[in-house]
Amino acid sequence: MTTMEKIQDMRDSKWFSNLTTFIILAYASVLGFKTMGDVETNYALFLRVADAFVTIYFIFEIAIKMIAEKKFINFFKNGWNLFDFVIVVVTLLPLEQSGFAAIARVFRVFRVLRLFTARPELKAIIDMLIKAIPSIIDIVILMFIIFYIYAIIGNFYFSELPSGLWSNFLVSMLTLFRVLTFEDWTDVMYEAMEVHPWAWVYFVSFVIIAAFVFFNLFVAVIIGEMQKLQESEMKEEIHEDHLKLDILLNEIKALREEVRDLKKDKRE
Amino acid sequence: MTTMEKIQDMRDSKWFSNLTTFIILAYASVLGFKTMGDVETNYALFLRVADAFVTIYFIFEIAIKMIAEKKFINFFKNGWNLFDFVIVVVTLLPLEQSGFAAIARVFRVFRVLRLFTARPELKAIIDMLIKAIPSIIDIVILMFIIFYIYAIIGNFYFSELPSGLWSNFLVSMLTLFRVLTFEDWTDVMYEAMEVHPWAWVYFVSFVIIAAFVFFNLFVAVIIGEMQKLQESEMKEEIHEDHLKLDILLNEIKALREEVRDLKKDKRE
Amino acid sequence: MTTMEKIQDMRDSKWFSNLTTFIILAYASVLGFKTMGDVETNYALFLRVADAFVTIYFIFEIAIKMIAEKKFINFFKNGWNLFDFVIVVVTLLPLEQSGFAAIARVFRVFRVLRLFTARPELKAIIDMLIKAIPSIIDIVILMFIIFYIYAIIGNFYFSELPSGLWSNFLVSMLTLFRVLTFEDWTDVMYEAMEVHPWAWVYFVSFVIIAAFVFFNLFVAVIIGEMQKLQESEMKEEIHEDHLKLDILLNEIKALREEVRDLKKDKRE
Amino acid sequence: MTTMEKIQDMRDSKWFSNLTTFIILAYASVLGFKTMGDVETNYALFLRVADAFVTIYFIFEIAIKMIAEKKFINFFKNGWNLFDFVIVVVTLLPLEQSGFAAIARVFRVFRVLRLFTARPELKAIIDMLIKAIPSIIDIVILMFIIFYIYAIIGNFYFSELPSGLWSNFLVSMLTLFRVLTFEDWTDVMYEAMEVHPWAWVYFVSFVIIAAFVFFNLFVAVIIGEMQKLQESEMKEEIHEDHLKLDILLNEIKALREEVRDLKKDKRE
Repeated sequence: MTTMEKIQDMRDSKWFSNLTTFIILAYASVLGFKTMGDVETNYALFLRVADAFVTIYFIFEIAIKMIAEKKFINFFKNGWNLFDFVIVVVTLLPLEQSGFAAIARVFRVFRVLRLFTARPELKAIIDMLIKAIPSIIDIVILMFIIFYIYAIIGNFYFSELPSGLWSNFLVSMLTLFRVLTFEDWTDVMYEAMEVHPWAWVYFVSFVIIAAFVFFNLFVAVIIGEMQKLQESEMKEEIHEDHLKLDILLNEIKALREEVRDLKKDKRE
Repeated sequence: MTTMEKIQDMRDSKWFSNLTTFIILAYASVLGFKTMGDVETNYALFLRVADAFVTIYFIFEIAIKMIAEKKFINFFKNGWNLFDFVIVVVTLLPLEQSGFAAIARVFRVFRVLRLFTARPELKAIIDMLIKAIPSIIDIVILMFIIFYIYAIIGNFYFSELPSGLWSNFLVSMLTLFRVLTFEDWTDVMYEAMEVHPWAWVYFVSFVIIAAFVFFNLFVAVIIGEMQKLQESEMKEEIHEDHLKLDILLNEIKALREEVRDLKKDKRE
Repeated sequence: MTTMEKIQDMRDSKWFSNLTTFIILAYASVLGFKTMGDVETNYALFLRVADAFVTIYFIFEIAIKMIAEKKFINFFKNGWNLFDFVIVVVTLLPLEQSGFAAIARVFRVFRVLRLFTARPELKAIIDMLIKAIPSIIDIVILMFIIFYIYAIIGNFYFSELPSGLWSNFLVSMLTLFRVLTFEDWTDVMYEAMEVHPWAWVYFVSFVIIAAFVFFNLFVAVIIGEMQKLQESEMKEEIHEDHLKLDILLNEIKALREEVRDLKKDKRE
Repeated sequence: MTTMEKIQDMRDSKWFSNLTTFIILAYASVLGFKTMGDVETNYALFLRVADAFVTIYFIFEIAIKMIAEKKFINFFKNGWNLFDFVIVVVTLLPLEQSGFAAIARVFRVFRVLRLFTARPELKAIIDMLIKAIPSIIDIVILMFIIFYIYAIIGNFYFSELPSGLWSNFLVSMLTLFRVLTFEDWTDVMYEAMEVHPWAWVYFVSFVIIAAFVFFNLFVAVIIGEMQKLQESEMKEEIHEDHLKLDILLNEIKALREEVRDLKKDKRE
């Protein structure tokens, strides 16, 4: 067994993936507890060590994955490898001492995202979500049109309201998003109705159209996508049966032909 | 290639549809940014030019579509063409100088609705929604009956409450719609319970019945409609198999008959 | 055509059902507008006339239905007829002059429920809902157990809170129902957390369990019920095919047997 | 009929299960009414008697179940029996006089959970839920990652806000859970936007991602699980048909071979 084979074995082994998962989770807990005010000062050193250790482990792990490829370039052909690589590189940048120290600290959190690559089941869910995007994109455009028209009308009629919820186009969009989640939407409506008594038509129609279209189509598209996945096996069997029945029919017709020949032979 | 064919080619071409989409989106952005207070004065002229350009482009585009039809009247036989035509004509009316200037400005927003006709996928979604209406209409009537009865009872018992949420039939309907969306419905209930301690029966039963009936039936109808669309292919195959099996059975019975004849022939 | 046949024709005719629908809707509008404060005094007489007319029409309609039956008792065998009868009788009671005048006025609203019997589509929806009850009953019991346990615990720990939201068992149930609808549930939680800092475990677990179980099972049961209805035709075909395939196999085996006999006959 | 058989009959009989159900419900009502303030003192004795009676009945019932098993150890092999046993034992502990009196009172409530074991339908629902866990676990991990990253970022940027909703990691998680249920989430957002005007990106993206992923995948998984249960019968039939068609094809080919033999025999 060559060194190369040993490295490939290690990359594909369950314990290496579990070790990575464990280290990410431990590091996530450390980052989480750090935010408990009085704790931070006590273990600043511990945190720095943990940080350095995770950085070194990640470099080590990604090096294993790179070396295990026969051609170095293949490593970058997989989207998930690229994702790993970017996360490792970004956290390597010496931003800590620069003016971007605050941003650097936030970036460290994204290391937790590496759980996706460490656990194949999560990869599968994300892949499925990405596949579902094309079927959802048109509904998103539709929602945008509804939002756009309501935002322009809302901004036009309600822009002078004291709450400032309709002061410009973007703020109106945000207010409509709030109405979509039913979050205190009647407060917004009652304020508008004081100036324009018929404003309830605007709000009730938006709630009905946006919630109806949104919910309606979303649920429908999701269920449709899931059924495509789950029924594929059954569908295939039904389709195969369909083709087999045709073969059966032809077989039997040929058989009948031969029996007829037999009869003819006999009588002659 | 005649001029007529060139025009038809242009109408059906992908780039013409994409150009229209792009112009509508650009115009939508311009209208959107106009609402940012300090921006407006700076580019009033720009807006006027954009407005005129879009108007001219829309007339040009609708003219292409009209000319491309063999018979002029066919243009109006398509509901979506009619929809386009109305939007173009309405924004052509010289309302800007009249007393309806404000309304005219709002009407311009509806030009964004032309995205529906520029993108076939959106047309398909809207067509599907229109087809789903008959299956939903009875549920809407049912909801109306529930709302009506609760509104009358609510108005009868709670009309004197200081909040004025039940002061007449229409306001009661609006309040019930609010309760349906769970928006601060307990505030409404607690106020009513101060006068009528048993008012919680009214509110809890409404939440259960309306949310139950509404949600229950809505989801069921939607999923039913979607499954009709998606399973039609599989259903057809199953149905065809069903018919083919009958043919098979008949074939085999005929075959057996012939084999029996053979035997009889032989023995005689 | 006898008088009896004429009456049966009338009962089953579309125009009679439509007339009833129209009269109910007109009466519903009258009742609705009556609630607009200043209107009432002006048309007290009109209302009384409308009321009398509807009462007479309902008696007339129910009489037609009774006479149209061959045996008088058959009328009461149909649940919907009984429902009609009770509504007509209740509104006939001379409560207006008694101490129950207020209740009598509310009872008149239930006349709108006769829309169910006037429109067969609505009857079908209600019948479907009634059929779905057995599959939902166990989930309701489950919900009750969850509510019960949380109500007892909540009442035990939080009964002294100033808001009085947990003062006894029934009030605790109502508060939990409110939490289930997410209606200002954090206000309830933050109040409880001031006394018991770990109260968030109680609330978060309730939201997850109740919303999870409730939503989860509800959607599942509904979709299951709908699929039973919609796929029954397809399922029947598949089941028939299943049986036919068995017949086919037996036929072919018998056929083979006969061909073998043929061969044997020949060789002998 | 031996005593042993009588005991087994009793254990499996419907009336014994119904009696247990009735006693649990009666006891639950007693516990519920006890919380009505002024009632308690009046029937302290009654409550103590009821408590003792239920304790004795539970011991009696569990004894019946233990004796009815052929081997004593088999009783503990069933998870539900173990569940019963723990509930009975815990309420037997003499905590009433110790410092844990308060906890003991709460524990009594869990006796209501024995309804699960008394009603087989509820057992089935709980078993189904437990089976659905593996398919949901990955979505829960996914949700946790989303929550974790948003909590760290939220805590980092908003920890100084006066409301204290982001003061440490755990509180941030709770605040995000609140945002997930749409409960006054705009109040949280508006407060954050006063310091960081772009905070809306954080909140809107969280609402879209968490609600999208959560809702999307949850509904999909649930419907998938249910369909597996409900379509299993139909699927089995389709699968069997699939196999039978193969047998059919082979049978017919064999038959044709034999007919060909017949022909050959004849001609020779």
